Amino acid sequence: MTLIVLNFKTYRESTGEEALRLAKICEDISKDYSVQMVVVPQVADIHAISMAVKIPVYAQHVDGVGYGGFTGHVTAASLKAAGASGSLINHSERRLKLAEIEASILACRSLGLKTIVCTNNVATSRAAAALQPDFVAVEPPELIGSGIPVSKADPEVVRGSVAAVKDIAPGVGVLCGAGITHGEDLRAALELGSEGVLLASGIIKAKNQRKALEDLVTGA
Amino acid sequence: MTLIVLNFKTYRESTGEEALRLAKICEDISKDYSVQMVVVPQVADIHAISMAVKIPVYAQHVDGVGYGGFTGHVTAASLKAAGASGSLINHSERRLKLAEIEASILACRSLGLKTIVCTNNVATSRAAAALQPDFVAVEPPELIGSGIPVSKADPEVVRGSVAAVKDIAPGVGVLCGAGITHGEDLRAALELGSEGVLLASGIIKAKNQRKALEDLVTGA
Amino acid sequence: MTLIVLNFKTYRESTGEEALRLAKICEDISKDYSVQMVVVPQVADIHAISMAVKIPVYAQHVDGVGYGGFTGHVTAASLKAAGASGSLINHSERRLKLAEIEASILACRSLGLKTIVCTNNVATSRAAAALQPDFVAVEPPELIGSGIPVSKADPEVVRGSVAAVKDIAPGVGVLCGAGITHGEDLRAALELGSEGVLLASGIIKAKNQRKALEDLVTGA
Amino acid sequence: MTLIVLNFKTYRESTGEEALRLAKICEDISKDYSVQMVVVPQVADIHAISMAVKIPVYAQHVDGVGYGGFTGHVTAASLKAAGASGSLINHSERRLKLAEIEASILACRSLGLKTIVCTNNVATSRAAAALQPDFVAVEPPELIGSGIPVSKADPEVVRGSVAAVKDIAPGVGVLCGAGITHGEDLRAALELGSEGVLLASGIIKAKNQRKALEDLVTGA
Repeated sequence: MTLIVLNFKTYRESTGEEALRLAKICEDISKDYSVQMVVVPQVADIHAISMAVKIPVYAQHVDGVGYGGFTGHVTAASLKAAGASGSLINHSERRLKLAEIEASILACRSLGLKTIVCTNNVATSRAAAALQPDFVAVEPPELIGSGIPVSKADPEVVRGSVAAVKDIAPGVGVLCGAGITHGEDLRAALELGSEGVLLASGIIKAKNQRKALEDLVTGA
Repeated sequence: MTLIVLNFKTYRESTGEEALRLAKICEDISKDYSVQMVVVPQVADIHAISMAVKIPVYAQHVDGVGYGGFTGHVTAASLKAAGASGSLINHSERRLKLAEIEASILACRSLGLKTIVCTNNVATSRAAAALQPDFVAVEPPELIGSGIPVSKADPEVVRGSVAAVKDIAPGVGVLCGAGITHGEDLRAALELGSEGVLLASGIIKAKNQRKALEDLVTGA
Repeated sequence: MTLIVLNFKTYRESTGEEALRLAKICEDISKDYSVQMVVVPQVADIHAISMAVKIPVYAQHVDGVGYGGFTGHVTAASLKAAGASGSLINHSERRLKLAEIEASILACRSLGLKTIVCTNNVATSRAAAALQPDFVAVEPPELIGSGIPVSKADPEVVRGSVAAVKDIAPGVGVLCGAGITHGEDLRAALELGSEGVLLASGIIKAKNQRKALEDLVTGA
Repeated sequence: MTLIVLNFKTYRESTGEEALRLAKICEDISKDYSVQMVVVPQVADIHAISMAVKIPVYAQHVDGVGYGGFTGHVTAASLKAAGASGSLINHSERRLKLAEIEASILACRSLGLKTIVCTNNVATSRAAAALQPDFVAVEPPELIGSGIPVSKADPEVVRGSVAAVKDIAPGVGVLCGAGITHGEDLRAALELGSEGVLLASGIIKAKNQRKALEDLVTGA
């Protein structure tokens, strides 16, 4: 089933009560259409959303540190306790060091949390796949928030990432993101070999978020 | 009234359900003794704790970014929506750039959240005071988690920080931390001119957290 | 005497042999006009330039670490050995944590190297002044490389920084930067109370660097 | 031929004139024994050392940025102009983000500079190999500077890294480091499949650096 991961970022339209409202819309979409939606709110919003919806709630970032003398870190254990079932790692707007990415994946895996490692090109997709996350999500940074879908603007980065990931770690899924908004973008992404998309502003900043999501999933 | 800020860090004994339990103990202490306790759990734990206790709940870290295309950041707006009323900033285990500290203070101030900027010596306390947070908390990093109280091991860094802060910004409060565990440590901290303490492992890792807190506040 | 600090950044026109050539032009300007020029090449270029010119050569960045087990850091000792006599600290394109800024200033001071701490607004200028560097250089990041001079676009940030710095640490000098290119920009900067300017692309990317510098210093 | 890479770090015994002296010793060793020595001084020391010795001089760190508006970065172009022929990347004491590692490798490759990417375990060695540097150097951080050689304390991390690297990118060489001091450490490292070693304090802090190097290379 197609995976649609909606990164709430820190937009006003997806923070606090608005985050809760949007998560419920995503849950409706997941019920009404044959897609698996994942919502990715800010960490402080995870607990309230997890109590209110049944679809998976992921964090936008997780640190690889465990229990101990760490301050201001986001631990996998705290995410799980708040109801999250996975996390983005190394998003373009929250890049991590290589050793941190590996530690974050391990921390999540040990608690049964899913991991999506974001990358910026084919080479880093290949490197990320070598770390065996659940998914690699390739997003050319220059297209993020642009409204220009990666599946059209740079199909080679998607196709190349799929090939690189499958070559190194066949069990790792591939998502693509950046500029994805419409059903045709999603369809193109799937045709290029990805198993789903990571999207944000195209939906969150839409005048009608529910309609934007419906357009996305029915257009595919 | 003496301010006692308990940083939960990411200890097992102060994460998830354990965080909730500990926050309730802190609330009891605040009711039973003439001290103002502030609990500082991980961000993912803030919402559940805020619903359960009436004492102030602060975050361990806040980013200076606002609404927008940011991923994995902790915004003041999300903290407020989850029930937090303030945040540590620039803790020794989560140091920030100078411009980020200033942006974090502004972001909190604009939403009515209190700010405690952590520093490592007299010079950085002076610089932090110039940014006008609500509190500066000086903590020599080498004493954090050591069990050796800063109020004994390095009284000059506390006295000097109080003098520096009051010289530059008389309205900014001063806390001290690192190695604070017992009532005598707290008393010494107050005698050196601080208005309270920032503490963590001494209480959190105690066999009996409630008793450790009682010893702390009654010894003062 | 007016201080003119030319940040070479990593432009092609100011790297390697081009850096050496440009440093010699700056030396000529310093001789021919009553200004004190400081050149700020990349660290790898410092040694060759220091051997070739007599004007001060500063680094673009210095770390606060000393002798020891550190890799990839730029120590004050190595800069001094290569012939540098000062360093920028916390440039907008190389921001540092508060504690690092303080450590870098101390490391330089202990070896007799001059320090220019860059800041982004009045509040951070005040905080930087509290750390007692030789100079604070205020540069609104949005104007850097814009060609729009800070002295015209935002005179208040210069005037306010001068006031804040002199209030807290009268011995600390104030420079301003961002968008400074022409003589009138420099003159305006001096009239606002600064003791000099920090500039880069306006000179380095000029068709004729020598002429651009002459226009700068004679227009003032 | 066995590769021996000596990281000068920022030790007093390998900074400035001491760095030059030590580089000449390394050159002698390279001449007198059948090993290829590479010296890795601080960036500010590269120019003077490159003029004085004929063995390869590498940087301890290189940024992936090119010509442009960057301040305080270490560009491949500036390193090459100063005489370097390669660089460490992602050393334990200077970790980089995944995308930065890839950009640094590309920047070096485009100018003909060699790259050694440092890693901390088998998983990150595999990921680093996917980026196709010239070498991967695995160094468990807890053994760095310990005097306990990785080749004895944790032979599996070396053997596993060699296997992982050769599996993914057969053309990428493998070095190991951390705690390497004596000839037997080097011999063990080679027997585990590595093509050389990365070492630092064991030689640099030795009473007699030349004798320490001779012991290293003749013991093998």
